[in-house]
Amino acid sequence: MKFIIQRDRLVQSVQDVMKAVTSRTTIPILTGIKIIAAEEGVTLTGSDSDISIESFIPKEEEGDEIVEVKQTGGIVLQAKFFSEIVKKLPKDTVEIEVGSNLQTTIRSGKAEFNLNGLDPDEYPHLPELSEEQVFKIPADLLKNLVRQTVFAVSTSETRPILTGVNWKVETGQLICTATDSHRLAMRKAAIETENDAHYNVVIPGKSLNELSKILDETNEPVEIVITENQVLFKAKHLLFFSRLLEGNYPDTSRLIPSESKTELVLTAKEFLQAIDRASLLAREGRNNVVKLSTLEEGIIEVSSNSPEIGKVIEQVQSQSIEGEELKISFSAKYMMDALKALEGTEIRVDFTGAMRPFIIRPVQDDSILQLILPVRTY
Amino acid sequence: MKFIIQRDRLVQSVQDVMKAVTSRTTIPILTGIKIIAAEEGVTLTGSDSDISIESFIPKEEEGDEIVEVKQTGGIVLQAKFFSEIVKKLPKDTVEIEVGSNLQTTIRSGKAEFNLNGLDPDEYPHLPELSEEQVFKIPADLLKNLVRQTVFAVSTSETRPILTGVNWKVETGQLICTATDSHRLAMRKAAIETENDAHYNVVIPGKSLNELSKILDETNEPVEIVITENQVLFKAKHLLFFSRLLEGNYPDTSRLIPSESKTELVLTAKEFLQAIDRASLLAREGRNNVVKLSTLEEGIIEVSSNSPEIGKVIEQVQSQSIEGEELKISFSAKYMMDALKALEGTEIRVDFTGAMRPFIIRPVQDDSILQLILPVRTY
Repeated sequence: MKFIIQRDRLVQSVQDVMKAVTSRTTIPILTGIKIIAAEEGVTLTGSDSDISIESFIPKEEEGDEIVEVKQTGGIVLQAKFFSEIVKKLPKDTVEIEVGSNLQTTIRSGKAEFNLNGLDPDEYPHLPELSEEQVFKIPADLLKNLVRQTVFAVSTSETRPILTGVNWKVETGQLICTATDSHRLAMRKAAIETENDAHYNVVIPGKSLNELSKILDETNEPVEIVITENQVLFKAKHLLFFSRLLEGNYPDTSRLIPSESKTELVLTAKEFLQAIDRASLLAREGRNNVVKLSTLEEGIIEVSSNSPEIGKVIEQVQSQSIEGEELKISFSAKYMMDALKALEGTEIRVDFTGAMRPFIIRPVQDDSILQLILPVRTY
Repeated sequence: MKFIIQRDRLVQSVQDVMKAVTSRTTIPILTGIKIIAAEEGVTLTGSDSDISIESFIPKEEEGDEIVEVKQTGGIVLQAKFFSEIVKKLPKDTVEIEVGSNLQTTIRSGKAEFNLNGLDPDEYPHLPELSEEQVFKIPADLLKNLVRQTVFAVSTSETRPILTGVNWKVETGQLICTATDSHRLAMRKAAIETENDAHYNVVIPGKSLNELSKILDETNEPVEIVITENQVLFKAKHLLFFSRLLEGNYPDTSRLIPSESKTELVLTAKEFLQAIDRASLLAREGRNNVVKLSTLEEGIIEVSSNSPEIGKVIEQVQSQSIEGEELKISFSAKYMMDALKALEGTEIRVDFTGAMRPFIIRPVQDDSILQLILPVRTY
């Protein structure tokens, strides 16, 4: 294998596939990046066996030569060193050549590195997915779907299925749901499907976070292939594979109250800042719990009290308070997470009493919903 | 105590004095910030008993009212909470009022915090220094003096005196020296003294690092007062006290070779980048050691070898190599630290053989010197 490549393109691809590489693996070759040079270009692969990422660098793009492949072939190089090296090379182009005994030379200007490589044939194969059923989502919408749900997954392994986000596809709609059993985030979006596809899978939260970091903020479509135990996201020059979580995701629809007793309409940003301030003293306490009370004339009072440190009380003017008077306590963190995930400036909060879950959503948008279970203090 | 203050000025002062506050203190009141409101303005103090910082916010500046003191007095508030609170307050002004039982109210817009305060009379007094002998250094030069020496202090407590920087003042010159016994950094500067002052003190490296963070990059003079066991830096509206280290600083002048056998002249940046690359593989090994060899025609070879990972070799073109041929090994980290500390683009490296300390300095500047002890590998 021997090729000359533009350094910045190599650096970018290495950074992308590095998202899947971990030093904590039981399969030593997975601490490396697989590099394959073919006539059409160079392919890099990184994997931790849960997530695998493949990045392709084409021979040329828009008339510019990016890679000159002098001899096809492949090698696996230690990801940690290879990624540091390419970042710090002195010139705009890099030559990579595999010699005898898998010894690999990386040359740029007057700098020459010699790395001990590993045999690419020993690198695990990526799953082969039959691509009969594919649906498409623009990259920027996909990033939003992830951002607005993934924070609500469980971080505890006591119910592993809750560490993932449930993706349900039916009648041309994708419904993403995440819950850690104390709060729930749900987001719907219309999708392009080729036929009347049905899916109901759970994608690990970690995979979605890494995917979101790699995708560009464009409206280019990402193709999604779902099989029994794998999902594949295909963007331009990029394949992102993740295993799916096994098991049945709980039915969350019955958690969502259909009626309400107290409804608030208010500005998300102002509310978020008030909760943030109220939580400053609450963090020290047990649960980061703040209290909310409705007062006269559309005023909402947000407060918290940590006897050893002090207390905070703040009034927020809402657009409207309808229904019953209310005093309720909840986790400031969950509320801030939910408010940050919402789009739009006006939000609506529907309560069904101090002991029942409540719902936060944008006033003009039914595609997103955040649910929080209150904390019993009153 | 009651006053109304511009929030951004309060935030800045709190940030400055926070540099001295630590949560790991055996004196509980030092986890707080002392606030004193007087007719002329408000003074904040933070201290960990080694370092004490006092920041003054004047009643007005350039005709703008900054503080309106309604009632003089004082309080001590938990630094951790107070600093978070002032950062997140909703409006541009803040009212702070001490009520009964040291209960302190912080108001801004519709937000109201109530913090449990502590008695300011119980806060330790700052040292009182007689200011007979003062010398001055512009703030930007002072920051440079610190930056170019402090990295070389020892991080080990086996010889506590080496964790500080030696400041020697004589005949209108300040000489700053730091060494961890493997390398040494020295910087001289002419200073304004009022009389023929003599000092020889050791300032903790940590104090100088914190001082450097607080000082603005201006040429405003900083007044320096040195006593037997304290040093005080006085900038505009800021007092920075540090204790001095006890003991005699070793005489380092005899470490510095007065002759050389091999002299290199080269570009600092190019050399630094080559060392940085060579160290990429060396870091894994024992000591992060790189090798340097002089070749023909002014070429210097920088290399390192970590058998398990691979090797790197790079040629750097120098302006000149004079004297004996040389092969020498040294810590890449020490060399990079030294090169980053130098000003100017052209540097000169003077070697006296592979086993002797060598010196790096700018070609056109005698006020700064970096010394490194080689590692025996050849």
